[in-house]
Amino acid sequence: MREGGKVSTALRIGVAGLGTVGCGTLSLLARHGDLIAERGGRPILVSAVSARDRRKDRGVELSAVRWFDDAVAMAADPEIDVVIELIGGADGVAKTLTERALAGGKSVITANKALIAHHGTALARLAEENNVTLAYEAAVAGGTPVIKCLREGLAANDFSRIYGIFNGTCNYILSTMRGTGREFGEVLAEAQKLGYAEADPSFDIDGVDAAHKLAILAALAFGCEVNFDGVYVEGIREVSALDIAYAEELGYRIKLLGLARRIDGGVEQRVHPCMVRRETPIANVEGVFNAAVAEGDFCDSIVIEGRGAGGAPTASAIVADLIDLARGIRLPPFAVPASRLRSLPSLRMERHVGCYYFRLMVVDRPGVIADVAAALRDEEISLEAMLQRGRAPGEAVPVVITTHETEEARMRRALDRIADLEAALEPPRMIRIEDF
Amino acid sequence: MREGGKVSTALRIGVAGLGTVGCGTLSLLARHGDLIAERGGRPILVSAVSARDRRKDRGVELSAVRWFDDAVAMAADPEIDVVIELIGGADGVAKTLTERALAGGKSVITANKALIAHHGTALARLAEENNVTLAYEAAVAGGTPVIKCLREGLAANDFSRIYGIFNGTCNYILSTMRGTGREFGEVLAEAQKLGYAEADPSFDIDGVDAAHKLAILAALAFGCEVNFDGVYVEGIREVSALDIAYAEELGYRIKLLGLARRIDGGVEQRVHPCMVRRETPIANVEGVFNAAVAEGDFCDSIVIEGRGAGGAPTASAIVADLIDLARGIRLPPFAVPASRLRSLPSLRMERHVGCYYFRLMVVDRPGVIADVAAALRDEEISLEAMLQRGRAPGEAVPVVITTHETEEARMRRALDRIADLEAALEPPRMIRIEDF
Repeated sequence: MREGGKVSTALRIGVAGLGTVGCGTLSLLARHGDLIAERGGRPILVSAVSARDRRKDRGVELSAVRWFDDAVAMAADPEIDVVIELIGGADGVAKTLTERALAGGKSVITANKALIAHHGTALARLAEENNVTLAYEAAVAGGTPVIKCLREGLAANDFSRIYGIFNGTCNYILSTMRGTGREFGEVLAEAQKLGYAEADPSFDIDGVDAAHKLAILAALAFGCEVNFDGVYVEGIREVSALDIAYAEELGYRIKLLGLARRIDGGVEQRVHPCMVRRETPIANVEGVFNAAVAEGDFCDSIVIEGRGAGGAPTASAIVADLIDLARGIRLPPFAVPASRLRSLPSLRMERHVGCYYFRLMVVDRPGVIADVAAALRDEEISLEAMLQRGRAPGEAVPVVITTHETEEARMRRALDRIADLEAALEPPRMIRIEDF
Repeated sequence: MREGGKVSTALRIGVAGLGTVGCGTLSLLARHGDLIAERGGRPILVSAVSARDRRKDRGVELSAVRWFDDAVAMAADPEIDVVIELIGGADGVAKTLTERALAGGKSVITANKALIAHHGTALARLAEENNVTLAYEAAVAGGTPVIKCLREGLAANDFSRIYGIFNGTCNYILSTMRGTGREFGEVLAEAQKLGYAEADPSFDIDGVDAAHKLAILAALAFGCEVNFDGVYVEGIREVSALDIAYAEELGYRIKLLGLARRIDGGVEQRVHPCMVRRETPIANVEGVFNAAVAEGDFCDSIVIEGRGAGGAPTASAIVADLIDLARGIRLPPFAVPASRLRSLPSLRMERHVGCYYFRLMVVDRPGVIADVAAALRDEEISLEAMLQRGRAPGEAVPVVITTHETEEARMRRALDRIADLEAALEPPRMIRIEDF
């Protein structure tokens, strides 16, 4: 087993950031030292750590480990072979120390999805120029080895589509809303109490976190530069208990999905709530679990499901990357050399073609449905189903409509016109339907 | 990118066996030559093939490829770096050519689960002695990269249990029986017509194929020698439409599972029909699909699902192994050096502890249930539920019982006694319940 010419010497690591994941990683390394040395062919030695508060009790033994107040200084330390970056954030210290480490000939392992989503291509290039690697299994779907699967296990395939549930917080909220019939705000508050959602939950519930992961997977699967700005993003704040109930009635479940697809001359990348058929595997991924589905031309459809967050599962991914390094495995971060990654344009969401669900609250009086139908007809959108339950003349009733395939731009124009109808009591709620 | 000192030269392969998988592999290599060269860092060249009938039209271009009538001679050819063994069978030509290739310094890639299940440890040792590798991703669950996940993606974990659906034929038959209410024999005949079952289906339906795969996964996960003889095996011939209907009623589905578990001082390895809760991921894997679940102490539960057989998915796995070799990745076949694999005893099935379902056809008359209950009580087995539907005094009625946890030996003794009851019209049918 060789790495950088050294034979069977320890792989010395420095860990930057000692939150849940950092401490989980140190615990794992302490608990499984022998197992890891056996599988990796040599021991892994924690040489240094860096975090903000030196005095805080983290429940992990740090007395034999050198402490750096400055993580960037640690990245330059000559007694470290690999830096584990667990600080987070697309820029700032995380980026500086990653660049410093790579430029100095150290491999970097990171759980930082924002960093890779924003700077993945440039960092991969820097790693390759310095004959080191940038590993980020922990950045996507926590403990599930989805990066390893795409980059290696399924490497013989031309991928047509990658999709999945990439945010456990959103999936927990949507699953709980469905299970209890409660509204978004109430379930979010509960998720925050249980530690499944952050105090500021916007990165999760607005879809940004899922979009980071999707952009990374799309680059890896399609051999293109990471293009986070090309991801259309819509979160779950607007999903209501009523729409979840209607989805059930129509045979669907509502999930926040990330989807990336190869299209003529580019890629489509989008994150938004989707209605998916109840009997599909992805519809049955519930609670805090994540799942990724890869569609390749030879493997067909491969599903990987597991815990997408948390100290222990994320540590599992980080140490898997470490064992790869100990074993001497060093691949280009995006499977092919960074110089070969293509710059592919992203489809504008207006050009997306799919089926749609929308719900309208209207005053129950004759002629409303005719007006709605006319708005759809004028955009050449054909109806798949229409539901209007109960009668309450002169009062507010929900009208639910699903459509056949149409272009997003048409759908938006039709919904704008429908929103302007006198009988419409609030803007229509629209959710895209995905048929797998 | 290096392999054996050569830089960016083609990796030259010889393919032994040109059935569905062999032709699928050649098609994949022909279709994705550029993609594979980009991802693997160098081209893969089909240098030679070997099969029985040279004249047969296989729909793949072979004019530029050397032909060997003798596969073992091909394995010794100096112009080949890697041999792909697709002949099949635990012994005979497949084994001889694999040994010859490894001993001659060539890596071997195989889809042959019987070979690895019976001789995996010895072949791994031979590969390591010769500084080459033995890769077998295609041998377990076809296109799903379950070997890669266990050996690398989840390598930081101590595994407690591995289980899954490892035989698509059985899963297709059981899914179809449930969907249609038809009996085993009828559905098997249909599966044979559709090509989902072999003319001689016994390897599949008697659980042997699943047991091969389970033994391989257990060795890899637990770091022990492959011990196929230690697997308890029971197939699906005895599963009836009535038991499937009762399972539904009780909230279960019947699946042929392979399960391997670490126990004190050994492993438990078993393949048999199981009742699994309808809401578990494994219960929802239907048709020809395979799924593997790995339970590790840090990753928790990871599920991988995909097509477990067929030319294209299996070719995907073989070429993934080839790309690994092209990239210079060479790991011990069972994650740790073969000399370090422990010889762990397998639990005898009599010592298994679990919950049980059984169904009895009895004459409907007073006292029968009391006799059954007494047989269970005398073995200290406690009942979880009892169902007796309909009344037909003096006629045959089914009685269904589920139990709490008990030892298999006790259950067998109780069932022997119940089978001897005068009111019992046929031996009781027993199916083990697995709660995940």
